[in-house]
Order: sequence, then structure tokens, then C-alpha cells
Amino acid sequence: MVEQRRVILDCDPGHDDAISMILAHANDKIKIEAVTTVAGNVEVDKTTLNARRVCDIIGLDVPVAQGSNRPMVRETQIAESIHGDSGLDGPNLPDVPDTPVVEQHAVDLIIEKVMASDDDLTLVPTGPLTNIAMAMVKEPKIVPKIQEIVLMGGGTFGNWTPAAEFNIWVDAEAAKVVYESGVPIAMFGLDVTHEAQATDETIDRFAAIDNPVSEFVVDLLRFFKKTYKEVFGFDGAPIHDACTVAYLIDPSIFDTVDVRVDIETKGEFAYGMTCVDLLAVTGREPNVKFARDLNQEKFWGLLSDALATYSK
Amino acid sequence: MVEQRRVILDCDPGHDDAISMILAHANDKIKIEAVTTVAGNVEVDKTTLNARRVCDIIGLDVPVAQGSNRPMVRETQIAESIHGDSGLDGPNLPDVPDTPVVEQHAVDLIIEKVMASDDDLTLVPTGPLTNIAMAMVKEPKIVPKIQEIVLMGGGTFGNWTPAAEFNIWVDAEAAKVVYESGVPIAMFGLDVTHEAQATDETIDRFAAIDNPVSEFVVDLLRFFKKTYKEVFGFDGAPIHDACTVAYLIDPSIFDTVDVRVDIETKGEFAYGMTCVDLLAVTGREPNVKFARDLNQEKFWGLLSDALATYSK
Amino acid sequence: MVEQRRVILDCDPGHDDAISMILAHANDKIKIEAVTTVAGNVEVDKTTLNARRVCDIIGLDVPVAQGSNRPMVRETQIAESIHGDSGLDGPNLPDVPDTPVVEQHAVDLIIEKVMASDDDLTLVPTGPLTNIAMAMVKEPKIVPKIQEIVLMGGGTFGNWTPAAEFNIWVDAEAAKVVYESGVPIAMFGLDVTHEAQATDETIDRFAAIDNPVSEFVVDLLRFFKKTYKEVFGFDGAPIHDACTVAYLIDPSIFDTVDVRVDIETKGEFAYGMTCVDLLAVTGREPNVKFARDLNQEKFWGLLSDALATYSK
Amino acid sequence: MVEQRRVILDCDPGHDDAISMILAHANDKIKIEAVTTVAGNVEVDKTTLNARRVCDIIGLDVPVAQGSNRPMVRETQIAESIHGDSGLDGPNLPDVPDTPVVEQHAVDLIIEKVMASDDDLTLVPTGPLTNIAMAMVKEPKIVPKIQEIVLMGGGTFGNWTPAAEFNIWVDAEAAKVVYESGVPIAMFGLDVTHEAQATDETIDRFAAIDNPVSEFVVDLLRFFKKTYKEVFGFDGAPIHDACTVAYLIDPSIFDTVDVRVDIETKGEFAYGMTCVDLLAVTGREPNVKFARDLNQEKFWGLLSDALATYSK
Repeated sequence: MVEQRRVILDCDPGHDDAISMILAHANDKIKIEAVTTVAGNVEVDKTTLNARRVCDIIGLDVPVAQGSNRPMVRETQIAESIHGDSGLDGPNLPDVPDTPVVEQHAVDLIIEKVMASDDDLTLVPTGPLTNIAMAMVKEPKIVPKIQEIVLMGGGTFGNWTPAAEFNIWVDAEAAKVVYESGVPIAMFGLDVTHEAQATDETIDRFAAIDNPVSEFVVDLLRFFKKTYKEVFGFDGAPIHDACTVAYLIDPSIFDTVDVRVDIETKGEFAYGMTCVDLLAVTGREPNVKFARDLNQEKFWGLLSDALATYSK
Repeated sequence: MVEQRRVILDCDPGHDDAISMILAHANDKIKIEAVTTVAGNVEVDKTTLNARRVCDIIGLDVPVAQGSNRPMVRETQIAESIHGDSGLDGPNLPDVPDTPVVEQHAVDLIIEKVMASDDDLTLVPTGPLTNIAMAMVKEPKIVPKIQEIVLMGGGTFGNWTPAAEFNIWVDAEAAKVVYESGVPIAMFGLDVTHEAQATDETIDRFAAIDNPVSEFVVDLLRFFKKTYKEVFGFDGAPIHDACTVAYLIDPSIFDTVDVRVDIETKGEFAYGMTCVDLLAVTGREPNVKFARDLNQEKFWGLLSDALATYSK
Repeated sequence: MVEQRRVILDCDPGHDDAISMILAHANDKIKIEAVTTVAGNVEVDKTTLNARRVCDIIGLDVPVAQGSNRPMVRETQIAESIHGDSGLDGPNLPDVPDTPVVEQHAVDLIIEKVMASDDDLTLVPTGPLTNIAMAMVKEPKIVPKIQEIVLMGGGTFGNWTPAAEFNIWVDAEAAKVVYESGVPIAMFGLDVTHEAQATDETIDRFAAIDNPVSEFVVDLLRFFKKTYKEVFGFDGAPIHDACTVAYLIDPSIFDTVDVRVDIETKGEFAYGMTCVDLLAVTGREPNVKFARDLNQEKFWGLLSDALATYSK
Repeated sequence: MVEQRRVILDCDPGHDDAISMILAHANDKIKIEAVTTVAGNVEVDKTTLNARRVCDIIGLDVPVAQGSNRPMVRETQIAESIHGDSGLDGPNLPDVPDTPVVEQHAVDLIIEKVMASDDDLTLVPTGPLTNIAMAMVKEPKIVPKIQEIVLMGGGTFGNWTPAAEFNIWVDAEAAKVVYESGVPIAMFGLDVTHEAQATDETIDRFAAIDNPVSEFVVDLLRFFKKTYKEVFGFDGAPIHDACTVAYLIDPSIFDTVDVRVDIETKGEFAYGMTCVDLLAVTGREPNVKFARDLNQEKFWGLLSDALATYSK
């Protein structure tokens, strides 16, 4: 029997969040304990609806809990320009998903699951870190019990400002709480996620798999590719968030390095930057496993295999 | 029948927090719905124990809920130098109070009570604003339903740094969330609370009332007076927190002015400052009723009357 | 023979700067070595013209050197709302003053005079601290040679923002350089200068002296009083800048205390604040003699006597 | 006749500054009007001595003016770990160079030369930007008259902190003044200068030229290569500063892009960062020609040719 990583997917679907869910559900090395949602790409009402829709489509039956609809300190910030009005524009989506939302707030579900665990629960945030930080502040006892935080966010450069990546920029104060918590962090920032660009060729490969889930992914990617072309001039659609789950399934896909990362929350122009000490000039202890590079063949192979597991 | 103000006392007892509770419980214009605790003067385990002890001593029977043990973003900061190791040094205290603590987290109790209210619940924070801000972030729907926030904190000068008062300095990010929320705020900062100094004469007056609660208050004030003398060189013990409840009972005790107040969270030397626009130079809409002055006779009379209501 | 304090008046006249010059020139305890100008109340072209005009009117014959027309780091900021378009609105002013301006830049004149001194030169800045800081950066050797800096600026509260006084706010970076330089500083901030308010009675007293200089001062004060009424709601015209010279003539006019003062240059709302450690909570060495109070009788008497020395 | 670029080399030699001077003097497309010095790699006394030593060695006869010995606002910061105690460790250096230092301060020489020019003078700062910014503040009229500023500094990543390159970090306030001045800027940051690494092969190639100047350069590079290996783990010695002069001689060596660059002066972790808007997400007008890439063959060829011009 395969040893499984028990995870909570904390997300703001979001095209790449959806693909991350699909990958996690398909692979038996991952056991999804819950899906929690946060405002980010769009408002939390929408990201929760989208999470439920993805559960419907892929047959994922776990608690879905709605979380924070605003950052800890700043005003709400969203990214509709990238993900469309619904947050998941492109495919046909069920209007009213069958998958229910639990009554519990995401922050409380995270606290409950971590406290009940044998210190073997991994948090996988692919949106702003609001829920995770709120849980740490509300119940500091969870901090030493979290096995690992495997997150998408930050990088040595930005996409929302010249210095900051969107997820961290939306709630840099939450990021500061998480990065200073002492929990082991594996970080998938733009340096590596911009390598995970789905090209036309990739999309064609997925299309050939030809089942409802691969079709859904193809529709997602076609839309996402278009907005990335328009907004950033990219040729491919970077599937940022799926890097986290891919790492949990097969760490050998990624080249990582242990580094110190600090979050800028005071800056005028660099607010939300993850200051990654790649040259080890700060002399401070590493707090992050930082992904620098990915193996294209393995990464796309993993995704392709995952899509193929869904029934026609 | 007297019209009552329904309040939640959110506090970190703390000598002056305790006196604030005593005043609120004695006066039938105030209906205490709950007591919630926060780390501040000392850790939250201790402030919760102290809140329960005060309930024991004064016969207050309401839910006591324990809250946040750390600020939203910064590391924990406490003020043992002022309140002693227990947070309530001076009087003899029951080791294990009879008053229980509810299971619910303070943040959730606040959310539940506000959501269940007819928009007629007033929050009275006399410690750092962590619980209030956490509740606002976790459930933004409470914001328009809170009747008023009547708080002790800030001022045009500081006591913990040259620019910042302790409660705001401990969690300036929480203060920012609260001050920018749009909820009506009445603010009792150092400008007015330093006028509420209990002198030897005051203490003698309270001692003459001669019941267990007045005796308890006298013991509190004797200790508090001593540390204020040692640390700040003050002749009296400022009963900061009681100003909030005194205002709710009799607003005419205080001279107030409507002003804009902003919270400094980025500064190098002024972190945690409440920037009070007394000269109206910012041109921004007031968000705070700022207390400038108190009527000594009325204030001490109110406290004296309150103590006299407790049975011998 | 009277022992004289040799001073450079570094100013941005400005109504109260002008009165400061008049007071200094009238009293034989002060020897004005030069007048240097800086942008502040208005642009440096205007403050230089005004300095020369005042020299004409009072018969002051010293080098006048024009200085910096912008802050060290920020964009130019001026205060026309207070001093009118000319910077010295109110009296009739000579269009083209006889007093020349020297070719040397104020920064260089300051450096030259200090370097040539027997460490007995006092700088008296009554505008933004740009020239002084620029001189310290250009020639760090002047720092240990300056006898004292007696300045108007800052305070425990603000007049241009809720936290900052105009002179410091205009160039907080320059203020930081000066306050951290180690030079002995005597600081006359709003706490004390707001006590130096010329009332109608004061103005009448000056008018009765009845010479061209007292007349000039009366015209200045009438205008200044009007704008202070309109902008700040004050009843009198605070002669901020003259406190510096009054102190040099008779320190007993002022109650001062040795304190640590730090300049906020990073803050979002408190930029330009002078953080005055009156409660000695920072534990840091004092760097400033901070004026808290003035003796009204002595202060106005000194000014009155000064005006009376000018010939009819 | 070749059209010449008239330049002032504002530098803190410094191994790579020295090579920059050597390249500029060798090429008849460049006319060096003056060399000005600044504290940076070491104190200004030492950088001035080194500038004069390099003039001796290469026969450069232009005014050498000593400049600022401290940043505009912060305390002095130096980088002895990289350049050794003298700032130019490695070769044998003349103890007392023949080349004199002029009396004029670098800031004043820059102002004088720019004001006297036909708007055809280019400033080439290869150290902290203190002198340039001080000149702009002291005499704002130079700003529209400077043809271009071609500088070494910054980048999308740091070498002194995770976010900041040394030259900008030393005096970020000066950098802010320069970058916001409106003068056309060509910026050679770490992105491109880390490509200009002299390897053993390069050094051998230079050694083969076999004249006193090439020998001097070889000695410089051997030392510099060693410290870069020890401190940063690099295999080559990056000749950062020479990129500026190389660009002025042959812009085709570099791939550049017009971008907006802002300087972070408020940040906690990102102080001194140059925020380079490569993805054009700020929507602000470009203020910088940013070098991304260099042509190795052309770059080393240019340097090799330059060294060969010096007589044996």
C-alpha cells in the first residue's frame, strides 16, 4: 500500500487551483482531507462555488469549508482580469453544484483537523495565506502540529507589482505570520511556476485523453492561456498551483534549495515581496525549501497520467 | 425602567480592566452580555483566569470566553512591569475561580452575539484589539451590526514608546482594521485616562466604603499606584479602562470631539501611534469620538457609588 | 562687555522668521554672522528676497546666502496658505532690496564659517533643516565643530499633519541627519511656540513703540494672526521662530528638559514626526534640550525691548 | 573624426571601477572630463587615493575631485570584504600618487561642469549615487542639462541583501532622487553585470597583452576573483562597472529594454531594492533603459582592445 500524504487544499479556484485539485484527487499518494476556500482570484463566495463545482466534476467527496473574504489587515483585492468574472471562466460550469459547503468556517476546520491529527497533516495553500495565518493566530497550538506547508506564492520577482506575486501581495501580513511561524515550508514561486507553462502542444496532449475531466482542463487552459497572453504576453498558461501537489507526489520533479525568505510588509514599492536569500547573504537560518527548477517531462507526464485516471 | 446598553467587555485584566468590570456590573444602565479575554497586560491564560476571579469576587455570572494569545501579525508583547506576574498583583486572589470559561473562542462568541443581536450590542475593548479585528476579518458581516466600539487605547502621546500607547502598540494591525472598519468608535486614550488618576485621597474614600469589593479595589489601586510611581513617576494610579464604562453610563462626564484617527503601522519610531487630527488638517471625515477631558467629581462619584452597591 | 553668541540664522522668512531676525539684530548678546535661506514657507527665491528685505528694513549688514530650493529626498513642499504669496504678506515691502545676496551657496557658507570658527558658532534654523543636513553630508568635519543647533521644529503634536510640524515634515530626512548628528540641539517645537501667541494686546503694545521696525512687525502680525485664525482657529499669532533667539539671549525664559528625540521617516501617517521621549521609556541617551514652557512676561518683554531699540 | 561622449566618471575604486577608468581612457569615443569620488567600496579618502593611483598608472590627466564620505541620510556603509583594506588590494600601488586632487568638492565640480556644458555631459556613476543626488539637491538647475546618467547599480535581485545591490543599498535615498529626477538613465544592474565575469581564460588573455596596464588589470582580477569566490561562490570576477563605459562606446553590446524602475526606501527587508517593472504591470512611464544581456565576444573584445592600446 502506498504511503499517503494527508492534505488540506486551501485555495481560491481559479484555473490553476482547479487543476491542482484534479491532480491531487487522481493520485493515490495524496489523501485530500478537506478543501477550504479564500478570497483571492475572486471573492470567497465565488471561489467556494468554484471549489464545489470542481468537486462535482471530478467526483471529489470531502468537506468544503468557506473561509476568509478579506485579507487580515488590508482591503480586499481581487484578480478578475486573469480568471474572468466567475473566477473559472472558460468551461461550462454547473450552476448549482451538488457538493455542499459545510457550516464550519475554513479557519475552524483547519484548526480542528490539525488538532485532531497525529502531526501528519500538510496544508497546501494556493491562494492568499489568510486562512492559514488566521488559524495560527486564533489557535497558536496548531503551529507545532502542522507537518508542512506546501504553498504557491512569491518568487524572486513579481507579477502583480514589479516586486510581488499576487497571492503574497494580497495579504502580505498573513504571509509574514506563516513564514515566521517555524512550520516547514516548501515554496513554489514564480521562478518555478513560470516554467510550468501549458503550451498548445500540452493542451492537445490533454485533449487526446478525451474524458470529461480532461475536457474540462482543456477548456480551463484555453481561457487561461488567452488571458496570460493578453495581460502578460506569455505564450503558455502557467499552471502555478499544481506545482504544490506535483511536489507532494514526486519531489524529484523539482530542484529545491533551503533558503531564508522574509516577507516585506512595510515597503512603498516592494510591499508583498518574498525576499529570497539565494546568495545566503543574511546569515540567517533557512526557513523555506525554495523550488528553482522543474523537470518538464516528469511534470507534464504526471499531469497527463492524472487526467487519464478519470473515467470516460 | 432604565434603558440598558448591552455590552461585551473584551479585556486583559489587568488592574484597571478589573475596575471597569466592577463599575459595569454595579450599574443598571449596563447589561454585560459576556466577558472576552485577550493577551495584553499578561498572557491570555492569565487574563482569562483574572477575568474569572473578578467574576467570582463581584458575583458576575456571564459567559467568559478566552481569546487570542498573540497579536495578528507581530510577536506576543506583554506588560508585566506594570501589572505584576499574575497580571492582577496586589489583592488576594482565588486560586481556582468558580466562574467557568466557556469552550467557545472569544472571537466566535463575539461573532455569534453580534450576529444574533438587533444591532444593539456595544463592544468595550480595554486591551489590544486583536479579538475585535479577528472577528471582523473572520466574519465581515458583523461590521455593520455593531452598535458602537467604546475602547481604551492610544492618545496624542504614548506610554510604551514616545508615540504609542500600550494597547494599540501591541497590535497596531488589529487597531488599523478596527479604526478603518466604519463602526462608530468612542476612544478613551491617554489624554483623558491620565486625568483619571486615583490619588491617596481617592483610595481612602474607597476604603471607607468598606465592603469586600471596595477592599479588592483598594488593594488593586495600592499596587497599581506603586508601579505607576516606579515606572512613570506618576503620583496617582490611572484607571484607564474604567473611562469606557463610565462613558456608557454617563457621557456627560467627558468632553469629546469628533476627529479623524489613523493608525501608524509602518513607522520606524511611531509604530502603533494613533494619529489624532485635532486641528482638522487632513480634511478627512471623522471616524472617532475622541475624549479630551473628564469631570473629576462626576467620575469619582460614579465609581464610589458603584462600589457602594456591593454588599458588605 | 557682553559675551556674545555668534550665530547663523538659517531661515525661510516667513513672518516669524522675520521677527526672529529683528530680535537677534536688536540684542547685543547675539552676533549674527550670516543669514542663509532655504525653501519652506515659500520657494527659496522668495525667502531670499524676503531675508534681504528684512535686512534693509532693520539695517542688518551681514552676508545673505541663498540655499536649497528642495528637500533632500522628497519633492518640494511649500506653505503659502499661511504666509501668503510673497511669503511675507502684510507689510509694504521694498521691491528690490539694497541688501545683496552673496554668490556662495548657503551650504558652503555654513561649512566655511563653521570650519573657520573656534567651535563657537551656533546654527539657528527656523525653516526646514535641508541646508544644515546638506552641509553635514557634504563636509562631515563640521559636525564636531558646531557649538549648538537651536531650532524651531517639531513637537509632541503636529500642525501640518496630525503627527508632524511643517518644518520637519517638509524634509524629515534632513531632520534625521541633524538629530542623529550628535551636535547639541535645543528644540523649540509647537508645545512651546504655540504659547508664544501674539494677541491683540501684544500687537497694540508693539504699535505703541511706534518706529518703522515696530510698525513692520505690527503689519506682519496682523496678517499672520488672520491666517492662523482662518486655517487653525487660533486667537493669536504664534511667533514660533523667535523662541530660538529669545532662548539664546535669555535661557531662563524657557523651561526645558533633556530628552531623546527621533525622527520618523518611514511612517504612513506619522512621517515627519519628532518622537519626543518625555516619559523616558526608550532608555536611550537624550540628544535634545526640549522646551516645554515659556515665561510670557519675560518673552514679550524681551521682544518689546528689542523693538524699542530701533530708531524712530 | 570620432564623435566623443563627454563624461564624468563618479566612482569608488574599487577593482571594477579601475577597469572602467582604463577602458574609458583607452577609447577615443570617450572624453573623460573629470573623475569624482565617493565613499562606497571603502571610505572616500581611500577611493580618492585609488582614483589618483589609477590615473598615475594609465596616464590619465583630468581633474580628480573628492566627494561625499557618507550617504545622504543613513550612516556610512563600506564593503571591505570584497575590495580589501585599501579598496584596491592585489596589485602593487604607488603610495603617494603624482596625480593631484583638486580643491573643489566633487559635488561642486559636477555642478560646475554640467552648468558650463552644452547639455552634452554624461554622468557615469559606478558607486553609490550620493554625489549625483547631492548635486541635484544643491543645484536643481543641473537636472535638465545632464545628457544621460549611465550607472552601475541595482538589478532585479540583490547581492548585499536578498533584495538590494550594494551601490543602491548604501544610499537608497540618493538613488531615489536620481531615479525620480527625469534625467535619462541607462542602468547596468546585477542581471547584466553578473554576465560580465572574467574567467581564468579571460585573465590569461589579458596577461598575454603584456603591458604595465594589462598587468595591473590582471593583478586586480586575480584578487577580485578570489574574494568573489569566497564571499559569493562565483567562478569569475564580475567587472560590473566597466559595463557602463562599454555601453557608451558600443551600445550594441547590450540588450536593453525601457522600463519603470522605483527605489524602495521604506522597506524592512527590501530597503535599497530597484523595483524593475519588466512585465509592465505598473502602467507607469519608463524612466530607465535597463540592460538585460551582453554579447560576451564583443564585451571582452572591447576590453582586450582597450588594454592593447596602452604602451609596453
